[in-house]
Amino acid sequence: MHVLITGAAGFLGQRLIAALLDRGRLDGQALTRLTLIDPAAPALESLSNDAIDVECRDLDIAEPGALNASLGERPDVIFHLAAVVSAEAEADLDLGMTVNFDATRALLEGCRRYALSATRLVMTSSVAVYGGELPEVLDDMTALTPQSSYGTQKAMCELLISDYSRRGLIDGRVLRLPTIMIRPGRPNAAASSFASSILREPLGGETAICPVSTELEMFVMSPGKVVAALIHGAEVSGDDFGASRSVMLPGLTVSVAEMLEALRRHGGEQALARVEHHHNKDIETIVASWPARFRTDKAKRLGFAGDDDFREIVESHLRERAASM
Amino acid sequence: MHVLITGAAGFLGQRLIAALLDRGRLDGQALTRLTLIDPAAPALESLSNDAIDVECRDLDIAEPGALNASLGERPDVIFHLAAVVSAEAEADLDLGMTVNFDATRALLEGCRRYALSATRLVMTSSVAVYGGELPEVLDDMTALTPQSSYGTQKAMCELLISDYSRRGLIDGRVLRLPTIMIRPGRPNAAASSFASSILREPLGGETAICPVSTELEMFVMSPGKVVAALIHGAEVSGDDFGASRSVMLPGLTVSVAEMLEALRRHGGEQALARVEHHHNKDIETIVASWPARFRTDKAKRLGFAGDDDFREIVESHLRERAASM
Repeated sequence: MHVLITGAAGFLGQRLIAALLDRGRLDGQALTRLTLIDPAAPALESLSNDAIDVECRDLDIAEPGALNASLGERPDVIFHLAAVVSAEAEADLDLGMTVNFDATRALLEGCRRYALSATRLVMTSSVAVYGGELPEVLDDMTALTPQSSYGTQKAMCELLISDYSRRGLIDGRVLRLPTIMIRPGRPNAAASSFASSILREPLGGETAICPVSTELEMFVMSPGKVVAALIHGAEVSGDDFGASRSVMLPGLTVSVAEMLEALRRHGGEQALARVEHHHNKDIETIVASWPARFRTDKAKRLGFAGDDDFREIVESHLRERAASM
Repeated sequence: MHVLITGAAGFLGQRLIAALLDRGRLDGQALTRLTLIDPAAPALESLSNDAIDVECRDLDIAEPGALNASLGERPDVIFHLAAVVSAEAEADLDLGMTVNFDATRALLEGCRRYALSATRLVMTSSVAVYGGELPEVLDDMTALTPQSSYGTQKAMCELLISDYSRRGLIDGRVLRLPTIMIRPGRPNAAASSFASSILREPLGGETAICPVSTELEMFVMSPGKVVAALIHGAEVSGDDFGASRSVMLPGLTVSVAEMLEALRRHGGEQALARVEHHHNKDIETIVASWPARFRTDKAKRLGFAGDDDFREIVESHLRERAASM
């Protein structure tokens, strides 16, 4: 089993690599080869599995033909994680179109060229494909009306992957990810950054800023469950997806107040006091535009699993933090 | 007011030209210039309006930069009708992607390049953007899960036009057309071609083939109402479209059995007997994947109007036929 990963050095890519090397198997077969595509090198020092041949390739998928040689080696599974994030895609339309859309199309064309009709392609999409005036609770048949260029580009890729799959040119699957909580590391420019920050920093003894009202709800999933969903996405039967190869993953609906209550439960009043409330209208507007309530019937039918409750999300973060110390 | 039309020599293009020359005005302003883009020359002999400067350009919009000179002349309204039809796009993925998607993207990029942010771009889309397992009655928030490459390409253009409009690069509007009945002329490569054919040919004394079961329902609109909708699409305010610049036009739900009953009513048993039933699984599959029942609230809110009943559709065809004899 030969697995290729684009965006391998990213947050999800690195975790997926670790999980794959740890399992050593995918879809009932031994994993023998891992091709990692990223202009940055994934951190692999601590990872080892002698049975698996791991190769990193310093490639920019936006360069024409960048993936051809790798696709010519006929990978069995492709995890296509490389993307320009939402704020970048909004700031630079051309960059977003080139990386998020054109590179995905080139990947599909490469699969077609090398007749990789049985290759399973797993791409990550996002709640950002939704937007505008939405129903109170979304479901698998809610229209995609993205209000960002990032969401537009992802939605276009979703359509293309479904069509190439329908035509038998590829065996595609697209997972729409909830907001990932709790990300490790530091706050970043993402509008959703505060959500991880208001737990992570106070639990680590630092202050954090909450820029939104506490009634605001988000649809979230832990990094561990997202990686498990990526792996499941490669193992589930493509035919079971039905008319569209896209699926919204089963996130958890949680309000900022509930996040802060979990912080108090795990870190005490002391931790809660480290959260400073400075309202930021721009961030509130963006985050409030993301849907928070979903009926994810298709994901459940396909066997994708989410987190049971927010406490589990916090506890898995604390376990990881302890393990990395 | 300078209007540019792509696909000007096509069925809808020709009718739109005639309607515009006849009106002489668009959106309350005098029409002064009409630029007609098509590799084929539109038939203009019978049309004349001295106040309007009409120029035909023999251009293939799929050629890189083909539209640049025309866009540099800063048209106020663009009707983008050029497309490869569904059966062609299904038979030739590359052709469909090039003409239906890439050329539309190049048009949007051309508008961006010449800063045509106030130019109203009206594109035609189709019920083919819908497909798969659909609710009994669709509405404006039903997800697009096209089951053809044509529908996929149109859905991708819709997303792009909404995003370019949201970014203020263009003032776009996309009209999802029901199946147009009754088209004049001869059967063509469109999967829906039979629907016009089973009325048109028998009423003209010729035989026609019905390749689908008579229980099949379609969502249809007369050529006259479609042309009126195109003009209204250029006149309505883009801001009123809301989160998406696409709208499903208010078609009429009619079964093939009802079409044949109308044929019998207008042409007698003799006409009905000219319809030969030869089932074609491929055509049935494509056409059956198109939804036939819609709640078109958005179109009605925006002031788009459909046909009152199927008899009106047949009678308008017979009037046109008589007028052209």
